[in-house]
Amino acid sequence: MPETAVATSFTDKLTASREAARALATATTAQKNTALRAIADAVLRNQARVLQANELDLANGRDNGLSAGLQDRLRLDEKRLIALSQAVLEIVALPDPVGDVVRGSSLENGLQLTQIRVPFGVVGAIYEARPNVTIDIAALALKSGNAVVLRGGTAAENTNRVLVEVIQSALEEAGLPIDSVQTIDEFGREGAKELMRARGFVDVLIPRGSADLINSVVAESTVPVIETGAGVVHIYLDESADLENSVAIVHNAKVQRPSVCNALETLLVNAASAPRLLPPVLAKLRESGVTVHGDSRTLELFPDALPATDEDWSTEYMSLDVAVRVVDDLDEALDHIRQYSTHHTESIITNDLARAERFLAEVDSAVVMVNASTRFTDGGEFGFGAEVGISTQKLHARGPMGLPELTSTKWVVRGSGQVRG
Amino acid sequence: MPETAVATSFTDKLTASREAARALATATTAQKNTALRAIADAVLRNQARVLQANELDLANGRDNGLSAGLQDRLRLDEKRLIALSQAVLEIVALPDPVGDVVRGSSLENGLQLTQIRVPFGVVGAIYEARPNVTIDIAALALKSGNAVVLRGGTAAENTNRVLVEVIQSALEEAGLPIDSVQTIDEFGREGAKELMRARGFVDVLIPRGSADLINSVVAESTVPVIETGAGVVHIYLDESADLENSVAIVHNAKVQRPSVCNALETLLVNAASAPRLLPPVLAKLRESGVTVHGDSRTLELFPDALPATDEDWSTEYMSLDVAVRVVDDLDEALDHIRQYSTHHTESIITNDLARAERFLAEVDSAVVMVNASTRFTDGGEFGFGAEVGISTQKLHARGPMGLPELTSTKWVVRGSGQVRG
Repeated sequence: MPETAVATSFTDKLTASREAARALATATTAQKNTALRAIADAVLRNQARVLQANELDLANGRDNGLSAGLQDRLRLDEKRLIALSQAVLEIVALPDPVGDVVRGSSLENGLQLTQIRVPFGVVGAIYEARPNVTIDIAALALKSGNAVVLRGGTAAENTNRVLVEVIQSALEEAGLPIDSVQTIDEFGREGAKELMRARGFVDVLIPRGSADLINSVVAESTVPVIETGAGVVHIYLDESADLENSVAIVHNAKVQRPSVCNALETLLVNAASAPRLLPPVLAKLRESGVTVHGDSRTLELFPDALPATDEDWSTEYMSLDVAVRVVDDLDEALDHIRQYSTHHTESIITNDLARAERFLAEVDSAVVMVNASTRFTDGGEFGFGAEVGISTQKLHARGPMGLPELTSTKWVVRGSGQVRG
Repeated sequence: MPETAVATSFTDKLTASREAARALATATTAQKNTALRAIADAVLRNQARVLQANELDLANGRDNGLSAGLQDRLRLDEKRLIALSQAVLEIVALPDPVGDVVRGSSLENGLQLTQIRVPFGVVGAIYEARPNVTIDIAALALKSGNAVVLRGGTAAENTNRVLVEVIQSALEEAGLPIDSVQTIDEFGREGAKELMRARGFVDVLIPRGSADLINSVVAESTVPVIETGAGVVHIYLDESADLENSVAIVHNAKVQRPSVCNALETLLVNAASAPRLLPPVLAKLRESGVTVHGDSRTLELFPDALPATDEDWSTEYMSLDVAVRVVDDLDEALDHIRQYSTHHTESIITNDLARAERFLAEVDSAVVMVNASTRFTDGGEFGFGAEVGISTQKLHARGPMGLPELTSTKWVVRGSGQVRG
């Protein structure tokens, strides 16, 4: 394949990805780790080139009125590049899922069955203004034996193009196909749409970004999608909740990093314990600058709160805001969660065994917790190493996704002439 | 909920399904088995009513020029009802996947993690003219704790309506929500389309039927889909293939049940062994009435063959026809399979260890075999009991699907006040 991408057609690119995927599927762990180390090294060696391209994107962003938040996501600097390079080396240290035996058996007729993990093949990624995702997804895909086709969006186009060139030269150095990692940014929005319909070329598509982006990929894609969705995360303080735990867990879940999907958004409190728990819990939040949006019963106990509207219950603030509602009992808490949860993470603070078990059984979320901060819903915290994302869908993967979630399986049947009777 | 479905709106029906799913998710295995036994019994007790409705559908089918094959699929009789009832009892005997612990660990901070199997929630099924699927899918969904919404198509509308009524009365008898199993046939094609877009109501959609049906569901659905696709299944006879095994396996794979997806469609033979293997292998097929569509080298060795066209290589005959091609080596066989396979099942007949391993590693199909008939790709043969279908996609499930493939998972985290540092 020619190294200059401009002259290459969309279909040629995807065909090259499929061919690269074939080679990657049988690459050894050592080969893949060599390539990853070369990428970690190349990201640092090419710092000047990468930052120059990033400056261009940032200047365009300023001209086009890109929000301060997006500009911050878009920005790379020496420190961030070092962290990205380090993250790639951490993926080197993780176990390779390919070839793992999931289960197996010997049948009565002597056939030997094993179900083993195999790469998906070609993974597509659609994301926005986050050049770190370019490196992250490329490294995770390579380690799990997948080729990857990236659509990183116009705002980061220059940065991503240079990053992909850097990755490709590292792949060449390490003897793996350079087409293992490709960008289709040069095909614009039309390319993104073609990617969503590239059945037979792309095995799975992972959108990362805003709810709008994810919804549009889900609506338009005929390629199977793994969704990493939003988190309207709840904590319920039961009447038996320990005060100290309630204060510490609610504070940690809301304040430690409010901009992420596992941060607390809505606090539910049992009416019987609200007078005991709410004032100290909310006072502690206020110390950290949290704005409380409360229902009428919350306002009685904590007059500093703003009145909550219906919209608050379904809002993922991602900021130092929290919605608070007093409920009569566990049933009302479960009803509220059923109505407003995005099925990401919910936690109950309680010392009552029966209600704890009911909460765990009846809340239909990727992660359900007792007496723990919702901030623990995280691939790193769960011990998976690098995180592909947190799936809020039920198909294939649910909750934090590690490398095994980037694989499919294959049944291997070894016989000695068996036929079916 | 009212028992008369006609007056109920589409959204009301799906809301009722969600509520039923909540109850099913925490139903015990004993409760679910009681309901399944009641269904097995009710199918037999209501034979007259079911067969009367089926007669009406068959009469409509004859009037509307339904093909003989579809009429046969549509037809129920006493024997088929007994077999259906028996199949439900076999599902009673299978282990309940719900609550199974997939994996777990204790983290350094004392958090206890377990990943457990939970029902999807609401499963949608879209199929055509096959009333047996109504019973099968309903029973499999119930056993795995799922509510199910059925769209069985106009041709079987009367039969399916009565079957669902019979199932619902059995559910009521057993104390499970009658809305656990519903049909939306009364909403016609528009209802099928709404089902495909019912995100938040339906967790997974399983199309069963023709390639056209499956492709249209994949294209239109925003609900995640599990595909059960076609099988253009290959066997490759390597130069070291044992003659007796080759004759027996090829015959079994083609002739034992030609109308199913795991039956052989294309035979590839190494050129060096073609003179030794092809004449006896094809003579044995001819004895069973198989028509051979061969390439030029096959025609030289077996003049009875018809010349194969390009179309033959991508045809799933599902009949007593087989395409045969002589290839120079394993590479050419792998290239052919890569180009034409539907990634269902492929088998190599060989005594060469290195080539066997290469075939297993490089063929990208749900099931890859050495020295065994492709007819073994089957949930029953694999020991899964009843079969949901054979997935030819890579997401969530690949190959024969049993009850566990009708479940998702949930992470349960038990703490004692842990917060993230």
